[in-house]
Amino acid sequence: MPDKPKLKEQDKEQTLGLSVKKSENLADWYPEVVLKAEMADYSPVKGCMVIRPNAYAIWQTIQEEFNKRLVELKVQNAYFPLFIPESFFKKEATHAEGFSPEVAWIANTEEGGERLAIRPTSETIMYDMYSKWIRSYRDLPLRINQWCNVVRWETKATKLFLRTREFLWQEGHCVYETKEQCDEEVKLMIMEYKKVAEELLAVPVIVGKKTKYETFAGADYSLTIESFMPDGKALQSGTSHNLGQGFAKSFGISFLGKDSEQHVPWQSSWGFSTRLIGALIMTHGDDKGVIIPPKVAQYQAVIVPILFDKTKDAVLAECRALEEALRNDGIRIVLDDRDEHSSGWKFNHWELRGVPLRIELGPKDLEKKQVMLVHRHTGKKHPVSMDNLADVIEKELEQVQKELLAIAKKRLEDNIVKVTTKEQLLQALEQKKLALAPFCCDKEIEEELKAGTGGATSRCIPLDAPEPKGMKCVWSGREAKAWVYFAKSY
Amino acid sequence: MPDKPKLKEQDKEQTLGLSVKKSENLADWYPEVVLKAEMADYSPVKGCMVIRPNAYAIWQTIQEEFNKRLVELKVQNAYFPLFIPESFFKKEATHAEGFSPEVAWIANTEEGGERLAIRPTSETIMYDMYSKWIRSYRDLPLRINQWCNVVRWETKATKLFLRTREFLWQEGHCVYETKEQCDEEVKLMIMEYKKVAEELLAVPVIVGKKTKYETFAGADYSLTIESFMPDGKALQSGTSHNLGQGFAKSFGISFLGKDSEQHVPWQSSWGFSTRLIGALIMTHGDDKGVIIPPKVAQYQAVIVPILFDKTKDAVLAECRALEEALRNDGIRIVLDDRDEHSSGWKFNHWELRGVPLRIELGPKDLEKKQVMLVHRHTGKKHPVSMDNLADVIEKELEQVQKELLAIAKKRLEDNIVKVTTKEQLLQALEQKKLALAPFCCDKEIEEELKAGTGGATSRCIPLDAPEPKGMKCVWSGREAKAWVYFAKSY
Repeated sequence: MPDKPKLKEQDKEQTLGLSVKKSENLADWYPEVVLKAEMADYSPVKGCMVIRPNAYAIWQTIQEEFNKRLVELKVQNAYFPLFIPESFFKKEATHAEGFSPEVAWIANTEEGGERLAIRPTSETIMYDMYSKWIRSYRDLPLRINQWCNVVRWETKATKLFLRTREFLWQEGHCVYETKEQCDEEVKLMIMEYKKVAEELLAVPVIVGKKTKYETFAGADYSLTIESFMPDGKALQSGTSHNLGQGFAKSFGISFLGKDSEQHVPWQSSWGFSTRLIGALIMTHGDDKGVIIPPKVAQYQAVIVPILFDKTKDAVLAECRALEEALRNDGIRIVLDDRDEHSSGWKFNHWELRGVPLRIELGPKDLEKKQVMLVHRHTGKKHPVSMDNLADVIEKELEQVQKELLAIAKKRLEDNIVKVTTKEQLLQALEQKKLALAPFCCDKEIEEELKAGTGGATSRCIPLDAPEPKGMKCVWSGREAKAWVYFAKSY
Repeated sequence: MPDKPKLKEQDKEQTLGLSVKKSENLADWYPEVVLKAEMADYSPVKGCMVIRPNAYAIWQTIQEEFNKRLVELKVQNAYFPLFIPESFFKKEATHAEGFSPEVAWIANTEEGGERLAIRPTSETIMYDMYSKWIRSYRDLPLRINQWCNVVRWETKATKLFLRTREFLWQEGHCVYETKEQCDEEVKLMIMEYKKVAEELLAVPVIVGKKTKYETFAGADYSLTIESFMPDGKALQSGTSHNLGQGFAKSFGISFLGKDSEQHVPWQSSWGFSTRLIGALIMTHGDDKGVIIPPKVAQYQAVIVPILFDKTKDAVLAECRALEEALRNDGIRIVLDDRDEHSSGWKFNHWELRGVPLRIELGPKDLEKKQVMLVHRHTGKKHPVSMDNLADVIEKELEQVQKELLAIAKKRLEDNIVKVTTKEQLLQALEQKKLALAPFCCDKEIEEELKAGTGGATSRCIPLDAPEPKGMKCVWSGREAKAWVYFAKSY
């Protein structure tokens, strides 16, 4: 009999597993996995959250990757104040109405000064500056982005990453000479967001236009990327708005054109937030924990040594050499050489935290000059020679990234149901599907539909859909104006 | 006569220059250059600032570079809430006393809930979480950093980057088993800060320990990096504190040791902020504008084409090819191909904004297959062959980086004056020098010295100084405990 790794004393006491299965109860699984995988934690301040390193690393990678794209798109990063004077909100009436219920105010004011809000979004504070900075067509297009925290004083129950009073986001705010330029880049940015969601997070999305009812407060129109969660709820994952000329007029932004006349410019704003991390967790996680796509994982691979008394030193030495070599090859790697836990406990530990590849190395592997590679999302396990290990790992990480997207994409596609009658719509929603229906797009019908379906809302008018010529609205029987996706949402 | 570039109409109207010389009046030069070089702008909200792209790019590069070091130092990034319950501040008495005058509070509270502060620093909100997360020695050391905004409700006049109610910073918060580990890493981090200041920003600093009087509220001791501005004022540019066990006791942080006993851990915190950008501007700027060291410059080089009607197309084509080639070689480059400005105007424009290298390319250069390279900080101009241009530029950027640090270092060294009597100290401060004096380090004497010198404060006890054995304190005549730097400060 070969000697076996011992189960350490403290490992017997610690239970790492989840108490709920994802497939059986996503609503309970989600907060448990977020907490146990150390993605986030509740704060003692109601409605606020702590983003822990395992999740923050995802956000940081998104930032780094998106910043590279912003340079290519000639968007510059900047930082505007957290505080916004109350009077700014009142300048754009629709915008003010949309945000006023959830604004947090600060208590400190100057003698006789006005109330200051904590930014729920930065249109107003930025456009006041833009009105100072923009003088002529030579200053346009102006493209500025900021990464920051925003506060919306939610009263509904906190959902980590999905609904918190404070969250992190980026908000881009651009100014153009013409409507055409603005339209073009509003679309460009939503397509960039699609890439962020799909290529980095492996979360497939539908790109579409919001109905009038769901349009951003103050915008002419809003484009959105919508992801679809395994519980049948949609998640708005990023939006890009054509703000028209309304804000420019309210904030007095104008420019001297090439024709020597004064003109009012067109504006866009676009943003995505840390809720993307929530989408990632729900999309890829399983009963063992979260699964983080390689491109955004803090650790792309974990080395777990299989330790026995006689061979411990040799195995550990090899693991350390491997760790260094792989790190030098640009792989984000961690070696779990802790003495106080068994290898089985470590498997569970890193599976819970979502590391996409595990590299096992024991005395037999050492003899054969190989390691065992284990894929987190499938459990697939196979030996790999130590020669060219970095190359193999890079290829497998790419493969895992693709597979995660493909799995999620298939689920999304499998869950889309085309409906043309009210009964079909109700049935599809009952079955937690994403329903695509011909719709009249009238505001009052949208409200009726929401009430009549127990909370389903229009998610978007897909950009690539044909017009529903001659068809009737699924809810009102009026002439249908567009194919529209409906689902309950986060 | 060859044809000459025309002075464009609008260029005649625009004056780019500064109205104040740096050497004559730094106090007026500084805000003017910050505004005109578009580094920052005043916000309509009193005490707040807008960090514009030219300066934000510096901050972003500092983040990217420092994040790489943090990975190597096994520090993980995270994000904690903006809001802190009032009761948290009261747990550590010294800390509460230090920060209470400048805390901003929010007006929204829950029914019966306590007041919430906007974080002025995050010790309390973080350590409350640490008390939940830390159970055993296996959880230590815990090393967490966050990049965020903080708010301190200043009542003194706003100074862009140097004193604003909101600023950006990073704050690292670590927990250790032993005092020795904590001491070691408190020192390690201040040496990292020295590298950030000197190697990235080319701002030389003195590393030292704060006197008891200047120690961070709640810390056992504080290390600091101090830079020295051309107006004779010191600027605290980063600090690293050994917090001892005080916070851990107040917040109930304890761990099960290897000896199976409960222990109270040791803690550190360390931070630097966007005021570093203020130090950079004051250190390197001149009468033409700011000068940004290559390593942190948004644009390391600007290509300015010299355009004449007949040769315009050929010159522009070559400039565009150069731009692409240099960008592909990893140089952060911008081509100013705007048609509406003369080349002379562009020279001024980019000098004001501090781009460290200018590449001029005109028809004669094109013939000779060369460009003219101009150094922003010296005006040095010389032709360089287009072959291997990227290599030459990379070398010159390194050279510029070194020269900027060397110039600033020499000024710092030239301005240090060793004094041993009160008269010498007063004279040194009068001459706007950085005075190094033997000091008793008694609190009441420090207050007397501050009053008696019109506001000079102790900056630090340099780490490498010998003990002033047998010497008398420069102010009190008591036994001197340490050599201490004195200056007025920002």
